[in-house]
Amino acid sequence: MKAAQFFGSRDIRVVDVPKPEPKENEALVAIEWCGICGSDLHEYLIGPASIPQKGHPHPVTKETLPVTMGHEFCGRIIQAPPSSSLSPGQAVMVDPRIHCKSCSRCAATHTHACHTWGFKGLSGSGGGFSETIAVDAGLCYPLPDSVDLKLACLIEPLAVAWHAIMISGIDKESWAGKTVLVLGGGPVGIAHIYVLRALGCDKIFVSEPTAARAAQNKEIADEVINPVKENVGDRCRKLTGGEGVDVVFDCAGVQRAMDAGMDALRFRGTYMNVAAWETQMVAPWVPLMMKELTIKSSMAYNDRHFKETVDTFIAGRFKGIENMVTSRIYIDDISTKGFDELVTNKDKHIKILVTTHRDKL
Amino acid sequence: MKAAQFFGSRDIRVVDVPKPEPKENEALVAIEWCGICGSDLHEYLIGPASIPQKGHPHPVTKETLPVTMGHEFCGRIIQAPPSSSLSPGQAVMVDPRIHCKSCSRCAATHTHACHTWGFKGLSGSGGGFSETIAVDAGLCYPLPDSVDLKLACLIEPLAVAWHAIMISGIDKESWAGKTVLVLGGGPVGIAHIYVLRALGCDKIFVSEPTAARAAQNKEIADEVINPVKENVGDRCRKLTGGEGVDVVFDCAGVQRAMDAGMDALRFRGTYMNVAAWETQMVAPWVPLMMKELTIKSSMAYNDRHFKETVDTFIAGRFKGIENMVTSRIYIDDISTKGFDELVTNKDKHIKILVTTHRDKL
Repeated sequence: MKAAQFFGSRDIRVVDVPKPEPKENEALVAIEWCGICGSDLHEYLIGPASIPQKGHPHPVTKETLPVTMGHEFCGRIIQAPPSSSLSPGQAVMVDPRIHCKSCSRCAATHTHACHTWGFKGLSGSGGGFSETIAVDAGLCYPLPDSVDLKLACLIEPLAVAWHAIMISGIDKESWAGKTVLVLGGGPVGIAHIYVLRALGCDKIFVSEPTAARAAQNKEIADEVINPVKENVGDRCRKLTGGEGVDVVFDCAGVQRAMDAGMDALRFRGTYMNVAAWETQMVAPWVPLMMKELTIKSSMAYNDRHFKETVDTFIAGRFKGIENMVTSRIYIDDISTKGFDELVTNKDKHIKILVTTHRDKL
Repeated sequence: MKAAQFFGSRDIRVVDVPKPEPKENEALVAIEWCGICGSDLHEYLIGPASIPQKGHPHPVTKETLPVTMGHEFCGRIIQAPPSSSLSPGQAVMVDPRIHCKSCSRCAATHTHACHTWGFKGLSGSGGGFSETIAVDAGLCYPLPDSVDLKLACLIEPLAVAWHAIMISGIDKESWAGKTVLVLGGGPVGIAHIYVLRALGCDKIFVSEPTAARAAQNKEIADEVINPVKENVGDRCRKLTGGEGVDVVFDCAGVQRAMDAGMDALRFRGTYMNVAAWETQMVAPWVPLMMKELTIKSSMAYNDRHFKETVDTFIAGRFKGIENMVTSRIYIDDISTKGFDELVTNKDKHIKILVTTHRDKL
């Protein structure tokens, strides 16, 4: 079958690989759509980073590169274990995480912090940029017919945002009336806005320096602030009766954005980092102390938050989510129209989805 | 009356100043003892820092240097407003904070984050290194005869620790069984240990590089770790069944200690900074994210936590607290036997207390 595999930096090849053989607990899934994630792009540009290199196999999959990429994928069941309630043809969203199920963190339901965590599409054992994949049936979430399978793979990036928002310290039912600043209006920032809207948050500000992103953000946020032209903290205080915002989500991972975000926070506000930083993170300790701020960071999502995101998606509460998809491409074009396009026209795109089915384009 | 005033770096003079005239809401207090704080020493060495300089008066006191120093003080009422329940001779501990009582933060009981906060002893309007002081009667906490007034001024540094511990996210009743790492076993770290003990915490580890401090720490902590000779994270994991500690209190404010503390934390543990940093604070974002840690910082104390510390002191729950006092000196000797002594023999001392009463020495 076709699979797009990572061989090294700027070297993703569509190759023919054996069709996976599901184990006893696994379902075989025909993948329909898989999104390209920022972390995939990171691997493409400067990887292998998370992808296991020769001589350093992943502790669970035992694999090294080349690995099939893609971890934001949905599809339909081909076959499922008799013990599962899944049947052939069933549309499913897949939780792509790998965890050992036996360490103390897995036992405490913190599967996302498993001592040997990984992701299908990065750590081996298949990925979403291929025709089929074998996955633990318990990680397949059935989707009703009302869900458009052309969009369902967006659940994965939405789950990342959902988790960060859920652990930010604000009660799930209390987002109405809360004020939020999102740093960086790219795909991750946009996913946060959709989730915050679904939770009823009605004061969402975005700090975004590029015109193309700002135009996208204006469609969904309440205010878009240009951090090059404006003082983000001053603007946020003006928008919040002088107090500052309740929560900052850092989807940028750059120092100037963090400094502005910490300045924009109200007393005892929370700065939640969602970004992977390429530099060190200098925590501005004076506002941290003077305002008794909290700095947190979130890591992917856990079982509960993935499920809640699926449920919210099924309930149709991510209004306008179709606008996140800016391109759909065939797997053979993944390097040129996928990764290279994201490098060349990065601010134009939010999410590029890949399929192995020409007829679905 | 005698008062030790700050004129500039390494220039503290005992001078004759007018006795304060209490305003309508103020009590006049005869000060008995006042501790030298690390922030006083900071001013002495590289100040004026918090002390208002010429041309930049404090917004509430309108004063600039020279100011009378000392903010950790207790004494006895000389006279009190008729509206208060205080009467002459009553022993009191004084909350030395200055706040406006009218800004949004004061209104929300966050008086410690008042937009124009200050401290008596740093910001003007008198200080504890003097014979008497006029203070808002509401900031005078009566002490029963059972309290030794020779020790009561320790309530102020204990309140700093109490507040940091209270906002660290662990419920007040839940410290038994929790594991704590204190970074830096100096006066602030030691105050944390006394408070944690009073709250029932029975697994307190201290990371302290100097032999003199380590010897003091061994008397009160469960484990003292030498960060120069041992890997603090490994040792903490060994002491906690492999998981790491629940909370770190950073009373050191240096990068290596923070790095070790972040490494020592368990999944979703909290790093609470209590120190004023002299360098930038680099937050190690990889453990921050991978373990979903929380970084917080505390600022002095609020009304509630000061009162709770007074109550706990009165209840005699800070066992062995007398060991915090390593020297008592007369005000005339404050530069030589106070500040210079803390510079020269800093690891020998925990707290040096100052009085204007020769007969109390």
